[in-house]
Amino acid sequence: MADKKLVEAITSMEEDFAQWYTDVVKKAELIDYTSVKGCMVLKPAGYAIWELIQKQLDERFKATGVENVYLPMFIPESLLQKEKDHVEGFAPEVAWVTHGGLQPLQERLCVRPTSETLFCDFYKNDIQSYRDLPKVYNQWCSVVRWEKETRPFLRSREFLWQEGHTAHATAKEAEERTIQMLNVYADFCEEVLAIPVIKGQKSEKEKFAGAEQTYTIEALMHDGKALQSGTSHNFGDGFAKAFGIQYTDKENKLQYVHQTSWGMTTRLIGAVIMVHGDDSGLVLPPKVAPTQVMVIPIQQKKEGVLDKAYELKERLSKAGEGGLRVKVDDTDKSPGWKFSECEMRGIPVRVEIGPKDMEAGKCVLVRRDTREKITCDLNNVEEEVSKLLDTMQKEMLERARAHREEHTYTALDMNEFETCFTEKSGFVKAMWCGEQACEDEIKDKLAVTSRCMPFEQEQLSDRCVCCGKPAAKMVYWGKAY
Amino acid sequence: MADKKLVEAITSMEEDFAQWYTDVVKKAELIDYTSVKGCMVLKPAGYAIWELIQKQLDERFKATGVENVYLPMFIPESLLQKEKDHVEGFAPEVAWVTHGGLQPLQERLCVRPTSETLFCDFYKNDIQSYRDLPKVYNQWCSVVRWEKETRPFLRSREFLWQEGHTAHATAKEAEERTIQMLNVYADFCEEVLAIPVIKGQKSEKEKFAGAEQTYTIEALMHDGKALQSGTSHNFGDGFAKAFGIQYTDKENKLQYVHQTSWGMTTRLIGAVIMVHGDDSGLVLPPKVAPTQVMVIPIQQKKEGVLDKAYELKERLSKAGEGGLRVKVDDTDKSPGWKFSECEMRGIPVRVEIGPKDMEAGKCVLVRRDTREKITCDLNNVEEEVSKLLDTMQKEMLERARAHREEHTYTALDMNEFETCFTEKSGFVKAMWCGEQACEDEIKDKLAVTSRCMPFEQEQLSDRCVCCGKPAAKMVYWGKAY
Repeated sequence: MADKKLVEAITSMEEDFAQWYTDVVKKAELIDYTSVKGCMVLKPAGYAIWELIQKQLDERFKATGVENVYLPMFIPESLLQKEKDHVEGFAPEVAWVTHGGLQPLQERLCVRPTSETLFCDFYKNDIQSYRDLPKVYNQWCSVVRWEKETRPFLRSREFLWQEGHTAHATAKEAEERTIQMLNVYADFCEEVLAIPVIKGQKSEKEKFAGAEQTYTIEALMHDGKALQSGTSHNFGDGFAKAFGIQYTDKENKLQYVHQTSWGMTTRLIGAVIMVHGDDSGLVLPPKVAPTQVMVIPIQQKKEGVLDKAYELKERLSKAGEGGLRVKVDDTDKSPGWKFSECEMRGIPVRVEIGPKDMEAGKCVLVRRDTREKITCDLNNVEEEVSKLLDTMQKEMLERARAHREEHTYTALDMNEFETCFTEKSGFVKAMWCGEQACEDEIKDKLAVTSRCMPFEQEQLSDRCVCCGKPAAKMVYWGKAY
Repeated sequence: MADKKLVEAITSMEEDFAQWYTDVVKKAELIDYTSVKGCMVLKPAGYAIWELIQKQLDERFKATGVENVYLPMFIPESLLQKEKDHVEGFAPEVAWVTHGGLQPLQERLCVRPTSETLFCDFYKNDIQSYRDLPKVYNQWCSVVRWEKETRPFLRSREFLWQEGHTAHATAKEAEERTIQMLNVYADFCEEVLAIPVIKGQKSEKEKFAGAEQTYTIEALMHDGKALQSGTSHNFGDGFAKAFGIQYTDKENKLQYVHQTSWGMTTRLIGAVIMVHGDDSGLVLPPKVAPTQVMVIPIQQKKEGVLDKAYELKERLSKAGEGGLRVKVDDTDKSPGWKFSECEMRGIPVRVEIGPKDMEAGKCVLVRRDTREKITCDLNNVEEEVSKLLDTMQKEMLERARAHREEHTYTALDMNEFETCFTEKSGFVKAMWCGEQACEDEIKDKLAVTSRCMPFEQEQLSDRCVCCGKPAAKMVYWGKAY
């Protein structure tokens, strides 16, 4: 049976989290491997999640004045090299085009790993006067980074993302936009993906190649590892000086612009899997579930059952704001198989309807996350299902937040710090002197990195957890994907 | 003045159509050139049109059961070479990646010029049984073809498109899907872009590399040249045999699948410009106009004018199905400048509101296409503007159809045929024997190609217009972009 593979047991999370993850992405039919090493196919179930992320994120962008554009996928080598730190960061991992058709190119082109240099080259001509500012542009596209180790959604040689690139008249405005977009990302993660995040600043060591400051949102996965889920960079006028992007201000003086960039990627789908999934498969927050409700007819050959199932689908498709995304599973598989498939695919609510239910004027609703069964009056099904989806969306966030709180530890000295990472797993809050030497030492010893200096600082002690010198900042540390 | 450039006169269409086109794409701020030869930037005004095309086309796809996916942008050289005709058609114009990071690759990868080979490689594993069929997948992405001559939207080295790739159990089903998607394209062009098209089949010479049949929709531009606006290919089982894509049928026998592919690109934006534009700039059909209505306050410093303008905007934003796309131009430019800018950008309706209008309880509506001015009661503005947009959408199609009819000629012999292309310009209907020699001769002599054998055949005569031998088909001929 072609459908059998779906409902075979998958590896349990406790036993082997990495294998569980691989099983889920394959059996929920999110991705497939290809003949192109390190590149994936996003299958319909996976791409549909990305479409929902795109739509809702794009609406939030546009509400802040973002306009979408599209720039070329190729960057001439000389352009990539204009900003020193940037090229050092990216050159080792780009793919190079050397031939167009049958001819060798005069200059190599790299396939964009990110588009700061192209936007700068474009802005250089597009910006002349203060009246041309700000520019708040974004593009949805794919980028390429020649990674050695790849994992579905988390790290692949080509991935889909959005990259915003802005130019402003003042440093203050650029900083405000950097923080504004970080907040858009954080709200999106919490409200749409039901994933709570820590907002903070990256250390010098961890910041983006060419940025003055990098801000990040960090999420905790079910296995206690951290996932960087979105970043927002303030470039100051560094790129503007390297590329000569100047405008005439109101006093007719030439000034450099101040720039930002910010991005989120398909790795968010990986985050959704690893924050919400369980041993039966995927659990999708209703707001990004391509199918929110699956109606499953019981004894579907009995008269009237299929008609009733389709009637429920019709009614639910019009329920809530803008309608729900509903399907009926009328295949000839057994109800048991259908239940398991729904669970594997993470469909938030299933509705069971059979002859006995119809007689009683009821149906059964089952929540994917808690598996709670609710007997529902057929007359109220729109209201009940809409309410259930809202509740589920809210409680998934609360549960993820509780899990993060339970797995966030505090360490005051190196002993405690080591214990946190050897006997437990999660975020560890600890004080840091600000020196890269301590970050390096911690990374070498424990394979742990500074995730961020959170905006919400706490004064845990006045000493660096590593070297004991005076502390500058509290840092979230973690093992990262 | 930065805004002055917008309203400078552009070259007139009669004087130099090619220059007029270039002026419009630049001054309506649809695109910009880049440091990457042959590649463009789609600026906000251009990309927003593409977003509206995408949204409305995607809805039509999904209504026929299409599911979206995403496949890698790279194709290993060995994969591209598996189907003989296909590789011959595309190899001369692909870009080759030879290095990943600092290492040379073991096998070159081409940047996809189209993804038949990747879909085949994917389907080979994804399709096992008749239960896995049909597959009706599509992707939205960019593709690269190393063109020597490029023109904005019409021909560039990288362009955005959608490519549908389907697999079916039978030849009949594949042919039906090929025609179904051609019909989706034709309806979309007429109903959304207000561009009438001729549906037909390509000759052997003009068909897609590797296809059994290629169907096309052909549109006539304002200058009498033809533009291929969308194609749909039936591959039969040719690719399936080259790639070994087989399924087990209900009798447990191995069968090859039958495949199709179909695509539309950003060149549709070029078509919109060249079908509807005029000497004042772009004219956008309301359904793809990012801004459908611009409210322009007159004497905006007078008390209440700006408030009224914003009130109209609010009301119009809620008018019609799903609301209209409305902006207010409250910059300090003169109304005259604002009118010209609106015209250059092709905004379908402008609403003028000033103190005198307010006193009279009126405003003035101006249609972009006919420049008709309509005095409108402020109480009816939602209804009037919605009606005007509907009328404009409909009349733009009618006008384009009338233009095409006026520029479609019939030729019964070579003399008439030559006269059509030397003294006039447009489509020429003529009979053809079916031999490529005649196509070649006509192309050599007149730089004219067979656009399609239309589904609606006419028996103009029983002789080929070129060689005089018995005619097999009536063909639309034209000079093509």
